[in-house]
Amino acid sequence: MAKKFYSEIRVIYADTDAMGIAYHGNYVRWFEIGRTEYLRQIGYPYAQLEKGEMIWLPVTELACKYRQPAMFDDVLSIACWVGALGGASIVMMYEVRRKATDELLVSGSTSHAITDSKLKPIRLKKIQPDLYAAVVGTLEDV
Amino acid sequence: MAKKFYSEIRVIYADTDAMGIAYHGNYVRWFEIGRTEYLRQIGYPYAQLEKGEMIWLPVTELACKYRQPAMFDDVLSIACWVGALGGASIVMMYEVRRKATDELLVSGSTSHAITDSKLKPIRLKKIQPDLYAAVVGTLEDV
Amino acid sequence: MAKKFYSEIRVIYADTDAMGIAYHGNYVRWFEIGRTEYLRQIGYPYAQLEKGEMIWLPVTELACKYRQPAMFDDVLSIACWVGALGGASIVMMYEVRRKATDELLVSGSTSHAITDSKLKPIRLKKIQPDLYAAVVGTLEDV
Amino acid sequence: MAKKFYSEIRVIYADTDAMGIAYHGNYVRWFEIGRTEYLRQIGYPYAQLEKGEMIWLPVTELACKYRQPAMFDDVLSIACWVGALGGASIVMMYEVRRKATDELLVSGSTSHAITDSKLKPIRLKKIQPDLYAAVVGTLEDV
Repeated sequence: MAKKFYSEIRVIYADTDAMGIAYHGNYVRWFEIGRTEYLRQIGYPYAQLEKGEMIWLPVTELACKYRQPAMFDDVLSIACWVGALGGASIVMMYEVRRKATDELLVSGSTSHAITDSKLKPIRLKKIQPDLYAAVVGTLEDV
Repeated sequence: MAKKFYSEIRVIYADTDAMGIAYHGNYVRWFEIGRTEYLRQIGYPYAQLEKGEMIWLPVTELACKYRQPAMFDDVLSIACWVGALGGASIVMMYEVRRKATDELLVSGSTSHAITDSKLKPIRLKKIQPDLYAAVVGTLEDV
Repeated sequence: MAKKFYSEIRVIYADTDAMGIAYHGNYVRWFEIGRTEYLRQIGYPYAQLEKGEMIWLPVTELACKYRQPAMFDDVLSIACWVGALGGASIVMMYEVRRKATDELLVSGSTSHAITDSKLKPIRLKKIQPDLYAAVVGTLEDV
Repeated sequence: MAKKFYSEIRVIYADTDAMGIAYHGNYVRWFEIGRTEYLRQIGYPYAQLEKGEMIWLPVTELACKYRQPAMFDDVLSIACWVGALGGASIVMMYEVRRKATDELLVSGSTSHAITDSKLKPIRLKKIQPDLYAAVVGTLEDV
């Protein structure tokens, strides 16, 4: 089982819609937060990857399954983990829960190409063996 | 083949991100525009459904596949059509193209429950036979 | 001097634009976060006001002054305090700083009507004397 | 009197909030649309300015006055005109109306520095005399 990494956000008024719930498009932002915190927690903040190392992770696929709505002022717990690691691609998995009740609200995944800043695919293992090893380490968590 | 319905939007600066392209989360908004225009074009604007007839279409699943990025000021053409119609559910399909070149940028789908304003599933065919027939009409386009 | 209340957010990729900085419209969201945390910290969470007590605070005016840009992954510190309290209105003040350097990035204000859920103005002092006193308490901080 | 330039948008579900109205932060996006269309209509699309001529217009101040709410599916008419033109700055004015009724919903303004792509102020009249003349032309409309 891959190791899960956690972050939290609070639903703000701007996130709600006229149904009185969080607009479904916001989970894309919240997945991003989960993914960014994953990278930070393994020691490779994305801000540093983009600037220093010139590794980009453009999104190639996105999937969400909506089970329960999030409401204004809910604190959400975002779990993020690696679903699969390829040569020049990575799949991240997400679960968003209402923290107060632990209800699963939304699950999803994003697929990413691993590229340089010109969006050309790169072999992570070769270009950044340390980062590659750190990611593999979270895949093989026991 | 289902009949496709078209709408257009222009990418604004707010839609872009630091990669210089449209942030991937915006397609959720653009799918919504495609879907809303679909309903308007078949004669059942969503604003009317929600107010008059009390039919809601909460999103239950979302999928996107990203092929090419959209850039600031691009005019995007959004094609939307019905992928499947169930008793109390509907699947909408989308293709977003750069209008100037007709390149396919993103394709995707959303699944929706068909509910009343308390999010209780309703049988569209029974509650709104005219709307049901209109949707079926767009599925059977030749 | 009014007492300042603090909250923090981190700039995400979705918040950036093609200039490589946080899009100027995001400060409206961040002011909202500052204001919501102000109310929570004085003991009257907005979620409770809206549901239990039926007090709404629709925005009537907004002003922002932009001094320095916020960048991806910056942690921002949002200071929020009461600028003025009227019979059925309130002015909130904001300063957003880059936490790492304490640089002032944006200052601003929002004016709000104090209304019931039908947007009819109400006298806060009469309807909710405890909340009124709590707000006054933050104005008269020494 | 300055000449007014018009554009239109339709309020989508993503724009609404739990009050059932368009979230007040969206007007920042809509002002941007008005401003971008102004530049396009005078013959200097912002996409071209940023790429070809390296003129940026970062926002330095923003003000909005909210009078009436916009609702889901409303078509909004955005009027935009030049409020003032300085050596290296410009003020744009906005009025957003509900198209169906012509009610004024929100008025506002944005102030902009005129800079190169390193955010260094430039003298528009010297660097781009044609664009300067075009803007002046819209100020002196009779």
